[in-house]
Amino acid sequence: MGQTKHFVVIGASAAGLKAASKARRRDVAMKITVFNKGTFISYAACGLPYYVSGAVKKQEDLYSNLIGVPRTPQFFKKMKDLDILIHHEVTSIDRKNKTVSVTNLDTGEKFTTAYDKLLIATGAEPVMPPIPGINLKNIHTLQSIEDAEALRKLVGKGKKGVIVGGGFIGLEAAEALVERGVETTIVEKMEQIMLGLDYEMSVMVKRHLESKGVDVRTSDGVVEFKGDNAGSLKQVVTENAVVDADFAVMGLGVRPNVKLAKETGLELGTTRGIKVDEYMRTSDPDIYAAGDCVETHHIVSNKPVFIPLGSTANKQGRIVGINVTGGRETFPGVVGTMIFKALDINVGRTGLTEREARAMGIDVETVIVPAPDRAHYYPQSKLIATKLIAEKKTGKLLGAQVVGMGVVDKRTNLFTALVTIGATAESLGNLDLSYAPPYSSPITPALTAINVLRNKLSGEARGISPLAVKEKLDKGEDFVFLDVRNQNEYDEVRIPRTTFIPLGELKGRMGELPKDKEIIAFCKISLRGYEACNMLEPAGFKDTKFMDGGVVTWPFELVTGNGARQPAATLTQENRMLSSSTSANQENRPNPPGA
Amino acid sequence: MGQTKHFVVIGASAAGLKAASKARRRDVAMKITVFNKGTFISYAACGLPYYVSGAVKKQEDLYSNLIGVPRTPQFFKKMKDLDILIHHEVTSIDRKNKTVSVTNLDTGEKFTTAYDKLLIATGAEPVMPPIPGINLKNIHTLQSIEDAEALRKLVGKGKKGVIVGGGFIGLEAAEALVERGVETTIVEKMEQIMLGLDYEMSVMVKRHLESKGVDVRTSDGVVEFKGDNAGSLKQVVTENAVVDADFAVMGLGVRPNVKLAKETGLELGTTRGIKVDEYMRTSDPDIYAAGDCVETHHIVSNKPVFIPLGSTANKQGRIVGINVTGGRETFPGVVGTMIFKALDINVGRTGLTEREARAMGIDVETVIVPAPDRAHYYPQSKLIATKLIAEKKTGKLLGAQVVGMGVVDKRTNLFTALVTIGATAESLGNLDLSYAPPYSSPITPALTAINVLRNKLSGEARGISPLAVKEKLDKGEDFVFLDVRNQNEYDEVRIPRTTFIPLGELKGRMGELPKDKEIIAFCKISLRGYEACNMLEPAGFKDTKFMDGGVVTWPFELVTGNGARQPAATLTQENRMLSSSTSANQENRPNPPGA
Repeated sequence: MGQTKHFVVIGASAAGLKAASKARRRDVAMKITVFNKGTFISYAACGLPYYVSGAVKKQEDLYSNLIGVPRTPQFFKKMKDLDILIHHEVTSIDRKNKTVSVTNLDTGEKFTTAYDKLLIATGAEPVMPPIPGINLKNIHTLQSIEDAEALRKLVGKGKKGVIVGGGFIGLEAAEALVERGVETTIVEKMEQIMLGLDYEMSVMVKRHLESKGVDVRTSDGVVEFKGDNAGSLKQVVTENAVVDADFAVMGLGVRPNVKLAKETGLELGTTRGIKVDEYMRTSDPDIYAAGDCVETHHIVSNKPVFIPLGSTANKQGRIVGINVTGGRETFPGVVGTMIFKALDINVGRTGLTEREARAMGIDVETVIVPAPDRAHYYPQSKLIATKLIAEKKTGKLLGAQVVGMGVVDKRTNLFTALVTIGATAESLGNLDLSYAPPYSSPITPALTAINVLRNKLSGEARGISPLAVKEKLDKGEDFVFLDVRNQNEYDEVRIPRTTFIPLGELKGRMGELPKDKEIIAFCKISLRGYEACNMLEPAGFKDTKFMDGGVVTWPFELVTGNGARQPAATLTQENRMLSSSTSANQENRPNPPGA
Repeated sequence: MGQTKHFVVIGASAAGLKAASKARRRDVAMKITVFNKGTFISYAACGLPYYVSGAVKKQEDLYSNLIGVPRTPQFFKKMKDLDILIHHEVTSIDRKNKTVSVTNLDTGEKFTTAYDKLLIATGAEPVMPPIPGINLKNIHTLQSIEDAEALRKLVGKGKKGVIVGGGFIGLEAAEALVERGVETTIVEKMEQIMLGLDYEMSVMVKRHLESKGVDVRTSDGVVEFKGDNAGSLKQVVTENAVVDADFAVMGLGVRPNVKLAKETGLELGTTRGIKVDEYMRTSDPDIYAAGDCVETHHIVSNKPVFIPLGSTANKQGRIVGINVTGGRETFPGVVGTMIFKALDINVGRTGLTEREARAMGIDVETVIVPAPDRAHYYPQSKLIATKLIAEKKTGKLLGAQVVGMGVVDKRTNLFTALVTIGATAESLGNLDLSYAPPYSSPITPALTAINVLRNKLSGEARGISPLAVKEKLDKGEDFVFLDVRNQNEYDEVRIPRTTFIPLGELKGRMGELPKDKEIIAFCKISLRGYEACNMLEPAGFKDTKFMDGGVVTWPFELVTGNGARQPAATLTQENRMLSSSTSANQENRPNPPGA
């Protein structure tokens, strides 16, 4: 198809090899050469945590195809006529003469190759801050097969591991370490782990990890790594503690690898990734860039972002393969979708978080709706909490976060589609989503959350977020914080400083409440909290609200039955509470506020 | 809010109680009365198969709320001030005087009640054809709690059960029976089970049930039920066999219960369901109807349909509750989404099937793409097959079917959203769907299927469906049916009447193939089949195509290694083949045709 003679690719990972393979499929005549600095090509970097945990058994599994054939340079040569040269570093690009200078790292030989089209797919490199001791032995990132092999040798029952950084790589690493029996500590400088989530959603993840024995140290940065005489890590000194460590995993994220692009004068974006147009072309029309080294476009915020993901790299590589062979395919951008699993907890997000939206000056409405992920009577039913963020003015869905022990990827993908098309909450309440008891409730958790959002947007329901309630409490504001759960639930765990009247008794005990004061009602998941408002309002109470998400998503201190304090509920705990019928009581009711 | 004084509801199931509850939430003053003929109210009819199987332990679980409180009339009275009268049958409606005549079935007392707004939510009733012997003991439907209790007493190890009808109720019943150790037979008059699926997708379900020991008799109708002297079922006589039976489950679907509506002169639709407008009003503006008794609108086909589902009933009930209290909410219709599980196989569909679309005269393009449901190296990875149907002219996605041992509900819901908005395949290839190894491959199965579809629509890839290939074979057409799998795969199981050249040998053996004949290539999932076309075409072969879905979705006879014939591959088998690396061979390659 294309007239291109020689397509040169720098980097034989997701974007590079996808581009090369797609180009070959469209043009059998083209010469295609791929240079790769390292040994391993086309390996599943996202699979590394599962190789460390042992879920993935063999190294080869990480670079074998569907039916177990290793994707070696020989494989690509035989099957696709691609020339892949490993241990070959491209040291410079001569844009004027359209050549690249290459060094064979095994022989030291240097040579020059002409290109017609060039793809920079140099990926990203882990952030390694200049902390004293960072070069000690047994401090690893988790980006390469070599990293994973090193960690596999270090993990084991009773070993002590410190993960620096509570982003998703850090959390996936935490799962791997815990599954290997490692005493695991996460050190995170910010006040929450997973900055890609809003605070209250991140607390659910933190509490879950803690319930599995992980020491999650937020608002605590690493000051120094201390080693023994042999130069091996022994202790991690943080701002607030000294943590014994047999090894550490650096999970501080990655930076785009733009050295070559920069040296050759290609434009970089504001995020420091390589700037590309929708065809994945750099500022030089014969040079493309794709994957973890490029900046991309966020469809919702309409801003440049740097979100390096294997899924995006594959898509962008595919587009480059089409465009270097005469096609005109465009990459529309991303909506910030992410998903990860950390010890039975599933975490998905898409679009903007509330924090991101507010930082952009958008007036938002939000909801947090916990719900069972399938029919609540179906055996495997587990809680998930859905947070939605919408633009107040238009009702347009801006983002979603779904966290829980239940199925979240399904909901994340649905919201991804809805956020991408810019759907309004109003248009979505009656979507014909699939229902059978093993998969969802009749009005699915996604639709329940959408309906609560619609009710809040229309003013039919008045909710307040747990963070806003906490702020009121901290300011010492005068309001009634009304717990309408039943006695059993109250005895098990409660939020401090509340007034307790079970919903079933509310009608008879309204006299105990002041009519002119703000009343913020809640229950376990705030369905009964909403119902309480519906009872109080017609009785003349002027300012009633329910608190989003109830006790389940309250991200602050709780008091247990024996008076002990605990930081917040854990999903494991709430899941048990959900399925127990011991707390059954006439105060309880089935329908959520939006239903 | 509303001026309505008395809202009368006929039927205390999903639609009726949802409407009543929602109306109460919006209007505390309204008088709301619900009449219910039977004993049980607000029970999860969709949960009945799981109660029969034992997955749901207690009857009470079927009508208890999230935290185990039974939803009795007393519960609804106390929590929502709804007057629910069970064992009360509404015998007629006087539209002129706006009253209903009611009979108390316990006392025989008759009375009349005035309504301002009336809701008919009388549901549907199982189809019971006049087959001789149908009134024998131990023949049950599976619609009521009484049915389920009766079946729970009949199931057990070594018992023989016959299910009449291979629709989704029949298949859910099959799961329940097999899990109880029953020797199970399904008798289906049509040539396929699950008419809601296209033939080749339904075969996957059938073969899976067969692999679990279910005798699935298609193209075979029941002629007579034979009993013993005590009047209990003993044998089911079909057109082709006599099957011993301790009991039978009638799963022939349901008919809208429209007796009252018809007698009172309300308009019925072409599907015999009650005709309603988008506000759920019948032809009498003061009478609403919702749930399993109404006809609804299909958003894709733009035609009236009768698709009774609990999810739809809940949504419609909610809308009635809003509209009888002064609101103006509309029901947009459905897109034919369905999902069910039958013994580890998950089956989802949405939009139109190929058969439905063709029957409407639409020129369609289709693809069938098998793929692992998550990263193929991740332990729980299982195959799913996705079929997409698009309008050829516009590329608009009309429908999807997803079948497999892996996760299908996620994909079904995504396609539901995409079909609902009328998205084109072209617009969807780069959707930012969530990716991490436990949840999907980097280019997700949904996007892979969409990309194959795009390639077929644009002409970049030429595919042919297994059904079209079978037709050619049956007609004795002259073409090369080229199997490009490896020797191990071929030895294990093969399609009859093929030419076998492993992809890795194809380059050297092209001379064995005629250049001017049609060549239809395939492999296990037709990735290599596509690759074969890409090798043959530039070598001068004029008419090459790959067969959609490969051996995995070939719905016709296969020959196993020892020469035995089997009807088609089973997903269990293919799943094993997927994860085994024993058949690993350089002929194999990783990327799907659309990638």
